[in-house]
Amino acid sequence: MDIGKKIFILAKKLWSINRSLTGEGNRLTLKILKSVCDSMKIKEISTGSKVFDWTVPREWKVNFAYIIDPDGKKILDFSKNNLHLVGYSRPVDKKFTLKELNKYLFSLPKQPNAIPYVTSYYNDTWGFCLTHNQRKKLKKGYYRVKIDSKLFKGSLTYGEILIKGKSKKEIFLSTYICHPSMANNELSGPIITIHLAKWLRSIKKLNYSYRIIFISETIGSIAYLSRNYIKMKKNIFSGFNITCVGDNRTYSFLPSRNGKTISDIVALHVLKWKYKKFKKYTWRDRGSDERQYCAPGIDLPIASVMRSKYGDYPEYHTSLDNLGRVVTAKGLEGSYNLYQKILTLLENNYYPITKILCEPQLGKRNLYSKISKKDKKSIFKDRLLLDMFTYSDGKTSILEIAEKCSVSFWKLYDAFKKLEKMKLIKLNKMISISKERKKINNFISSKNK
Amino acid sequence: MDIGKKIFILAKKLWSINRSLTGEGNRLTLKILKSVCDSMKIKEISTGSKVFDWTVPREWKVNFAYIIDPDGKKILDFSKNNLHLVGYSRPVDKKFTLKELNKYLFSLPKQPNAIPYVTSYYNDTWGFCLTHNQRKKLKKGYYRVKIDSKLFKGSLTYGEILIKGKSKKEIFLSTYICHPSMANNELSGPIITIHLAKWLRSIKKLNYSYRIIFISETIGSIAYLSRNYIKMKKNIFSGFNITCVGDNRTYSFLPSRNGKTISDIVALHVLKWKYKKFKKYTWRDRGSDERQYCAPGIDLPIASVMRSKYGDYPEYHTSLDNLGRVVTAKGLEGSYNLYQKILTLLENNYYPITKILCEPQLGKRNLYSKISKKDKKSIFKDRLLLDMFTYSDGKTSILEIAEKCSVSFWKLYDAFKKLEKMKLIKLNKMISISKERKKINNFISSKNK
Amino acid sequence: MDIGKKIFILAKKLWSINRSLTGEGNRLTLKILKSVCDSMKIKEISTGSKVFDWTVPREWKVNFAYIIDPDGKKILDFSKNNLHLVGYSRPVDKKFTLKELNKYLFSLPKQPNAIPYVTSYYNDTWGFCLTHNQRKKLKKGYYRVKIDSKLFKGSLTYGEILIKGKSKKEIFLSTYICHPSMANNELSGPIITIHLAKWLRSIKKLNYSYRIIFISETIGSIAYLSRNYIKMKKNIFSGFNITCVGDNRTYSFLPSRNGKTISDIVALHVLKWKYKKFKKYTWRDRGSDERQYCAPGIDLPIASVMRSKYGDYPEYHTSLDNLGRVVTAKGLEGSYNLYQKILTLLENNYYPITKILCEPQLGKRNLYSKISKKDKKSIFKDRLLLDMFTYSDGKTSILEIAEKCSVSFWKLYDAFKKLEKMKLIKLNKMISISKERKKINNFISSKNK
Repeated sequence: MDIGKKIFILAKKLWSINRSLTGEGNRLTLKILKSVCDSMKIKEISTGSKVFDWTVPREWKVNFAYIIDPDGKKILDFSKNNLHLVGYSRPVDKKFTLKELNKYLFSLPKQPNAIPYVTSYYNDTWGFCLTHNQRKKLKKGYYRVKIDSKLFKGSLTYGEILIKGKSKKEIFLSTYICHPSMANNELSGPIITIHLAKWLRSIKKLNYSYRIIFISETIGSIAYLSRNYIKMKKNIFSGFNITCVGDNRTYSFLPSRNGKTISDIVALHVLKWKYKKFKKYTWRDRGSDERQYCAPGIDLPIASVMRSKYGDYPEYHTSLDNLGRVVTAKGLEGSYNLYQKILTLLENNYYPITKILCEPQLGKRNLYSKISKKDKKSIFKDRLLLDMFTYSDGKTSILEIAEKCSVSFWKLYDAFKKLEKMKLIKLNKMISISKERKKINNFISSKNK
Repeated sequence: MDIGKKIFILAKKLWSINRSLTGEGNRLTLKILKSVCDSMKIKEISTGSKVFDWTVPREWKVNFAYIIDPDGKKILDFSKNNLHLVGYSRPVDKKFTLKELNKYLFSLPKQPNAIPYVTSYYNDTWGFCLTHNQRKKLKKGYYRVKIDSKLFKGSLTYGEILIKGKSKKEIFLSTYICHPSMANNELSGPIITIHLAKWLRSIKKLNYSYRIIFISETIGSIAYLSRNYIKMKKNIFSGFNITCVGDNRTYSFLPSRNGKTISDIVALHVLKWKYKKFKKYTWRDRGSDERQYCAPGIDLPIASVMRSKYGDYPEYHTSLDNLGRVVTAKGLEGSYNLYQKILTLLENNYYPITKILCEPQLGKRNLYSKISKKDKKSIFKDRLLLDMFTYSDGKTSILEIAEKCSVSFWKLYDAFKKLEKMKLIKLNKMISISKERKKINNFISSKNK
Repeated sequence: MDIGKKIFILAKKLWSINRSLTGEGNRLTLKILKSVCDSMKIKEISTGSKVFDWTVPREWKVNFAYIIDPDGKKILDFSKNNLHLVGYSRPVDKKFTLKELNKYLFSLPKQPNAIPYVTSYYNDTWGFCLTHNQRKKLKKGYYRVKIDSKLFKGSLTYGEILIKGKSKKEIFLSTYICHPSMANNELSGPIITIHLAKWLRSIKKLNYSYRIIFISETIGSIAYLSRNYIKMKKNIFSGFNITCVGDNRTYSFLPSRNGKTISDIVALHVLKWKYKKFKKYTWRDRGSDERQYCAPGIDLPIASVMRSKYGDYPEYHTSLDNLGRVVTAKGLEGSYNLYQKILTLLENNYYPITKILCEPQLGKRNLYSKISKKDKKSIFKDRLLLDMFTYSDGKTSILEIAEKCSVSFWKLYDAFKKLEKMKLIKLNKMISISKERKKINNFISSKNK
């Protein structure tokens, strides 16, 4: 089966589970994801834990939630669509006039067919969401609101996968699992990421280690960082926040705060050479967990390659951001392939060094015409080999040489492999890590703490 | 009273005093300036003192100077307009034919109503200046020239104000007092500078110390440097040469030799955000005391923000550069305000450092909407706060962050103050000084001496 | 006699000698060149010597070579034009049908009047070259091929001139002597280079030493490098590969691999200010010995200033690249003058340092108008002097100051000499060497070996 379809099937399985910052929905989601890549570890952080400036909130559980309308009909039933209930709504069992109820209802006059996605994690309140068309039809009269929810000391749940490679240096992937029934802006992230994890595990010899986390947005990344940031700052060489990767309409790029890390450079190279058109955002457009990963004093090299970016497409944070209409198998497959290309490039971005001084004799290697004639182009059987060779000074990565030669990494990589096979160059596998890490360190102020 | 009018009244008081490189006119001018800011010290450097490549000239005194025309009429009377006499004219009492006299007369055929301003400091000569219209009316016949002047061993006079701040690092302001009856290209400088000094003294807690000098152009700054440059190179953090700041026609900027010092950056930021249109000169357009302050081996970070620049407006160095026509209360007030903005920016250009890791929780500080809905813009009550926060890494000044965020220093400063009040960032007041000084030092060659 | 004509006469003398990678023709050529500059040393490297990835080939000698056509007529006689025989052809004495012979014939259908220049140094083969018009006239029948050549253990010959200057730091010139009867793409190089050597020897006090070599392209430069590269990397400060310098059609520039060495900067400055229009190639257009001199691990600062570049003009590598048609006395003289300008600039590119602090007093040196009037431009008699002075900080070379002031090196050099004469600045002759060498060293990876 196509990988796109496989991922789409997983999406359907996870679609209707009620994910939030915390709760059983998140645990069930992680369990299903773990079934794709069983090395995932599921971890908990207790309610009330201090995580930097924040506190892990109470766990939220909903048994049922609906409204009985003046005709006695059950409407806005949470069990039919979890978007109807405002996230983290407290228990309610009370009658309201329509006028009173209206203060607790959310709809979008400009998108009258869409149910908005609304949350209120850190306030003691409640509410219901509905389409504007449905709202307009509500009659005067008494409405009985029934929310059987519970807010209690529990924990925040997250999943973590570590895939060990030759080096302790890590490539870090982060994605979030906290929005119910949101296809592009949530579900696309974890389902692609878990399949990337599966693929990485299938590779025999990885140069880098991979740390992959499935967390709740903001509070999850902050909680994770608060427990791991020293180790992360030491080990993470490159990384991406994987979100909004499911539709087939565009590709887009949001840089790290630094803007010039290896993550930024690789992402831009892949987009430029393999996808040509894409939208380029700036750090000021940030809005997801890169805000934490790149915060001052954290300073990790985390960038994002997305499809339609959160906040920038009409279906965003409404019931219209769904499977089929927005997220498609084709859209998912495209993003999956793109991240494979990015990770493959990172794995193979060696620093070649010449093994001989001066140019190699191409003739004896059958790469130079036996007869030297006027047309210089015809006598070199593979001109790119010499371009690769001339920059193999041990300090310039294949990616940097590709940029110098105005060719794609993959085209130049072939030249690199040929020269390596001919024993004309060797490689210094891990220099890239120390070099790139140094750049990041230079960016990080020693005065930061 | 408006500050512009106050400064203009001072200008009128000083207008007719005969200032030159040296002499009683300069002493009287300094005395009047001191009455505005009484911490000024008036100092003397003796005639004949060696100051680098130069020698302090003789002192010049004029008792009277005029010409008796063929009709016996007194014309070109120094006591009516000190521009009539060429600066540093030696004593003369002799008859001349008109033809002979003409060699000693200066007028401007292209500006027939203007008396030119002419000097000859270092040569034993004399001359008279007049409008070209008046010159054309001179009849044939004998003219008796009477100059009762004296050139004698005296001294060069200058004024100096030191205002102490928390740091020994100094902001340096220099202005000149050596042109008689020149409004924009002379008088505007000292009258604004003395009022800036008065204002600075009124401020309780200054971060920097301020050294402010009132000198003769070229020989004055060279003499001052020859006695103080080692200390100045050590202490001066930023500075400006204040000249041509009185008309209301334009703003202009002349960089330091380095071109990238904090003085250049601050001046350009203020001009860009507060005045929009302004003329930008290059170091090759220099012409005042920055030539000395930025000379190789001196290398101070001195820039100039002006109105109409010396040499670049029609009234320059003529009797037309006067109070009212060129220099106005409004023009003076504008420049005074501009320099207040520059100095305020320097005083407040802190290097903020985050006190917490990851983003602060805005919700508990009432800066995040209680209900999180689709429109990201509406849920952050002050998006600029987060932009300020994300760059608070301790190495980036408020000014640099403002440039990154494409907002003005003042807009960002508000965000800075809010975050500081919330105890989310702290500041490292004096890092700016050492950092900027280091940049200058890097620019200065150790091989310079 | 004009230098152009002198060089052209030398060209005629050398024209018909059979030069190749090796052989008596090369020895004779070097002997004639030595007669122009007798400090040349002629050296040999034995056949079979290992030189990096290459092996010095056998020596090649031709006694005679021709073909007897079906009518018994001698055609394609090597003694009449050495281009008729493919370089390094092995001995042959055999009859062929026209069809069989055709496999060994080379002609250019698109340039039917040109004999192509063909070689096959490292393969056991043979061949003849002819115009396409002549080829079309060949009748059917038997052709007797007679090649009396010899390939034997001998040596590779090269010439070397060392001219000592004050410093051990060297300027390196390399040119090649391995193409027979090729005017622009070969002969123009050695004949101009030997005259540059003669001129350099005539100069009394050289700041730099000059190392000048006359070698076979590729194998010659590789062999030379293999014996000398450690010393070369230590001593060579700047250098040029002199080739294709004989026609009068254009100037062109090919950078070093680094692209920003002193050789690149000086060459571009000379071309920009003295020749205005010229063609700029990139490192990817390389094709001569710079490939070896700039190879990774060798990293010498070698650039090329050429006329019509090899591979980029129609007569290239054909009998049409001849004296008169392509290479002219005027073309040669232009290139000779250009290289003189480049070397003169390198010799004189001092780092001036002020001897005084602040500006010098121009008045006492008669460089300032006795009377100071409105027009600032007229009162400075030589404004460029002050521009030169203001940048004389001991770290900025005359060339760099010229670029800052947007004037040519030569115009600024006059200002420099005047200030030096007035004892206002002094110079630090050799700082340029250490500074530039440091830049190169920074470029060279310490990890290279």
